[in-house]
Amino acid sequence: MSEAIPDLPTEITPQSQDFARWYVDVVRRAELADYSPVKGCMVIRPYGYAMWELIQQGLDRRFKATGHVNAYFPLFIPESLLMKEVEHVEGFAPQVAWVTHGGTEKLEERLVVRPTSETIIGTMYAKWVQSWRDLPILINQWANVVRWEKVTRLFLRTTEFLWQEGHTAHETEEEAQEETLRMLGVYKEFVESELAIPVLDGQKTESEKFAGAARTYSIEALMGDGRALQAGTSHNLGQNFAKVYDIKFQGRDKSLQYVWGTSWGVTTRLIGAVVMVHGDDGGLTLPPRIAPYQVVIVPIPRGNWRETVLPKAQAIRDELAARGIRVHIDDRDTQTPGWKFNEWELRGVPLRMEIGPKDLEKSQVVLARRDTREKSSAPMEGIGGHVEERLNEIQQALYDRALKFREEHTSSTDSYAEFQAIMEGRPGFVISPWCGSAACEAAIKADTQATIRSIPFNSPSADGKVCLKCGSPATVYAWFAKAY
Amino acid sequence: MSEAIPDLPTEITPQSQDFARWYVDVVRRAELADYSPVKGCMVIRPYGYAMWELIQQGLDRRFKATGHVNAYFPLFIPESLLMKEVEHVEGFAPQVAWVTHGGTEKLEERLVVRPTSETIIGTMYAKWVQSWRDLPILINQWANVVRWEKVTRLFLRTTEFLWQEGHTAHETEEEAQEETLRMLGVYKEFVESELAIPVLDGQKTESEKFAGAARTYSIEALMGDGRALQAGTSHNLGQNFAKVYDIKFQGRDKSLQYVWGTSWGVTTRLIGAVVMVHGDDGGLTLPPRIAPYQVVIVPIPRGNWRETVLPKAQAIRDELAARGIRVHIDDRDTQTPGWKFNEWELRGVPLRMEIGPKDLEKSQVVLARRDTREKSSAPMEGIGGHVEERLNEIQQALYDRALKFREEHTSSTDSYAEFQAIMEGRPGFVISPWCGSAACEAAIKADTQATIRSIPFNSPSADGKVCLKCGSPATVYAWFAKAY
Repeated sequence: MSEAIPDLPTEITPQSQDFARWYVDVVRRAELADYSPVKGCMVIRPYGYAMWELIQQGLDRRFKATGHVNAYFPLFIPESLLMKEVEHVEGFAPQVAWVTHGGTEKLEERLVVRPTSETIIGTMYAKWVQSWRDLPILINQWANVVRWEKVTRLFLRTTEFLWQEGHTAHETEEEAQEETLRMLGVYKEFVESELAIPVLDGQKTESEKFAGAARTYSIEALMGDGRALQAGTSHNLGQNFAKVYDIKFQGRDKSLQYVWGTSWGVTTRLIGAVVMVHGDDGGLTLPPRIAPYQVVIVPIPRGNWRETVLPKAQAIRDELAARGIRVHIDDRDTQTPGWKFNEWELRGVPLRMEIGPKDLEKSQVVLARRDTREKSSAPMEGIGGHVEERLNEIQQALYDRALKFREEHTSSTDSYAEFQAIMEGRPGFVISPWCGSAACEAAIKADTQATIRSIPFNSPSADGKVCLKCGSPATVYAWFAKAY
Repeated sequence: MSEAIPDLPTEITPQSQDFARWYVDVVRRAELADYSPVKGCMVIRPYGYAMWELIQQGLDRRFKATGHVNAYFPLFIPESLLMKEVEHVEGFAPQVAWVTHGGTEKLEERLVVRPTSETIIGTMYAKWVQSWRDLPILINQWANVVRWEKVTRLFLRTTEFLWQEGHTAHETEEEAQEETLRMLGVYKEFVESELAIPVLDGQKTESEKFAGAARTYSIEALMGDGRALQAGTSHNLGQNFAKVYDIKFQGRDKSLQYVWGTSWGVTTRLIGAVVMVHGDDGGLTLPPRIAPYQVVIVPIPRGNWRETVLPKAQAIRDELAARGIRVHIDDRDTQTPGWKFNEWELRGVPLRMEIGPKDLEKSQVVLARRDTREKSSAPMEGIGGHVEERLNEIQQALYDRALKFREEHTSSTDSYAEFQAIMEGRPGFVISPWCGSAACEAAIKADTQATIRSIPFNSPSADGKVCLKCGSPATVYAWFAKAY
């Protein structure tokens, strides 16, 4: 039996009442995504997919500017291939989908639907790399992946999701480490400047690192409910996969060596992050750089508006479009202006422009900002430049607001009692000294649900400090949070 | 056991010796694609994927210009959902991959990996459409699909392939038919103008139409070995899927009606078509509009070339790039110019530019066309415009050459003996009168391997003609060919 899909919500649950419910209401009502008849799988609707296209374009440009090219590897991975790397298997085997039959025949060897592609890509690299001259390989893939999840949430955790996965191979350990941090930096810059979401970068602990990696780094963002969301990861794979998949090359000194690998990825969950960082009880609020429509023009239908107001609205639309602004006129006569205002607010359009007969007389338009809900008028003369400025202001204002929220929800404590108290409310990030033991990490999680999000780069010295949990000497400070 | 991957070919088999082998040699040696450890699945390597990206961009721009938006639907389809449409099931069930286990658990209901998405998309449309105001829905999806194939060939027929699938829903039968033909027209224009491949458009016979469609239309191209390749299809689905998946709306007259559907798609096999239409014994020949590099500059390494020739080559590279030309300097000092000439010819780069110290003295460059292998010199002054003109010439010349080849391999006959004789050589397209019976169609295929590619639009009248095969009155003329 396929899954029944509940009807779309007509009202949006207030955040204060139930943040998780608010989130799903907004995602479905704004038509970003919907449930599907397949358990745990979502449909990304055109409005949400348009955001994904903007994310893809923004990242792809950055990947290419840093020397990467795209390729495509098979969806299926033979069981024997997945099973080669021990840690990797332990990490992924419990959550893969198994293909056992093709057409009417039972397969000799089962196939997994890729949960990630290190194994299949590593196998190909072993064929392609012979000499140091073949290195580095800097390949990215845009693809769907599948991880069998028991509890799913639209965009944030679904059985199938879309992502990009970079897989690189290098001559030296240093180069691989540089690449790992370079791509983490690309993610941070992208998420902060395009999605207007401030992130903390750092290194994952042993227990949180990618199955099979030497080191994992992440960027972590704070959602509106005070929970953290891992927004991107970059892994230094060392020579682990190279040794298992036999990716060898003849070095400059003629000796046979294993390559040094990295992999890195972000997913459609970034869309969920945008919803949870910027949204409010009115629905979505989209940063202009990621908004499918940056401006929606609503002509006010009075008198012979189709002959007077509409042509002017169209002229302004053309002027904005010529500047590269994504603009849409909502000239449906099946809906009232009030309905349209509400609808586009719910869909988070950064700037609404109203034009009525009176505005026409005054050669002006009315602009309404989604983020502040401020209304103001602006002269039609030079409207393109004016709108561009407003959009830049909104982009910056959303980032500033998110940063302020994060700062207000960031604490530092050495006391476990205080730590526990923080984690009971709307917690945010807490930075605390930690001894480095996985046992303490697990005990803290069991007590409070908080996990170590990362060990910050350039951490303050933990000399003389003791571990939050066990009281033995601390080795580092760590970022803790309850996380999605 | 996963599949062993044979080493890359060092030599390319001549076309005249073995066209099929030539094809695979070129595809692998030019690094468009490679075999993978997964039976029947290919790896699209960066050079081939760059062609796919250009195809995607060219088509996506056209889809959006005709009002379509992109979305993403689940990879998996529950068995019960696939099984609803009887013809569709018969067409696809024998060739789907079955997922039976998720993680460690056996699934209650098996899932198929999508072979195409009418069933899952139809199910969602049924949720989204209520009123005529919700129509039309004009959605496209870029995705991977899986069809279990016994015999596979890189790009042309693989178990997994990449494609786009448009799925639209309309208020009236007329609109759906218009959409079906509009998208066929988009495909024809795209393939002819960007891939430089002339195509025949027409309607498929009952036995060749899409499983579940009312009518299927296709574009058909002729490959270098005289075989036809179906390069794109557009289906008028009538109300078949709407009735099965219950996609109803309240019409303008308040009555409850079923939507009228279309679907249409092209795949990564277009890359195979480019190889087989334009390639020769030297390897690929790429039409400029689809070439990852339109120009490769090879500096001739004499004397202090890194101080003299290279800066000039870089300046020209920048000038070409500023015009939007895709240009690459091959300044590797690990390879000789001769090796580079050969390599870029094999990879089908339309125009090679050589710059040596002597050219520098004369303020000129040497240009070598891949299609004609002609070499000529051109002044550095105004090189950007000159190169642009040459690229346009090459694009047109490739189209003209392919059209001439097709015309030389197109015949018309009423005689079955003559028809059979043609099909024994390098056949091409043959247009012949046909009675419309599936039995004759099947008998002709059994005798000659030739299938009806399509019934041409604006077919000449078949009045007074008799069927090629059975001698009873002909109803139409049909395009026959041996096909991939």
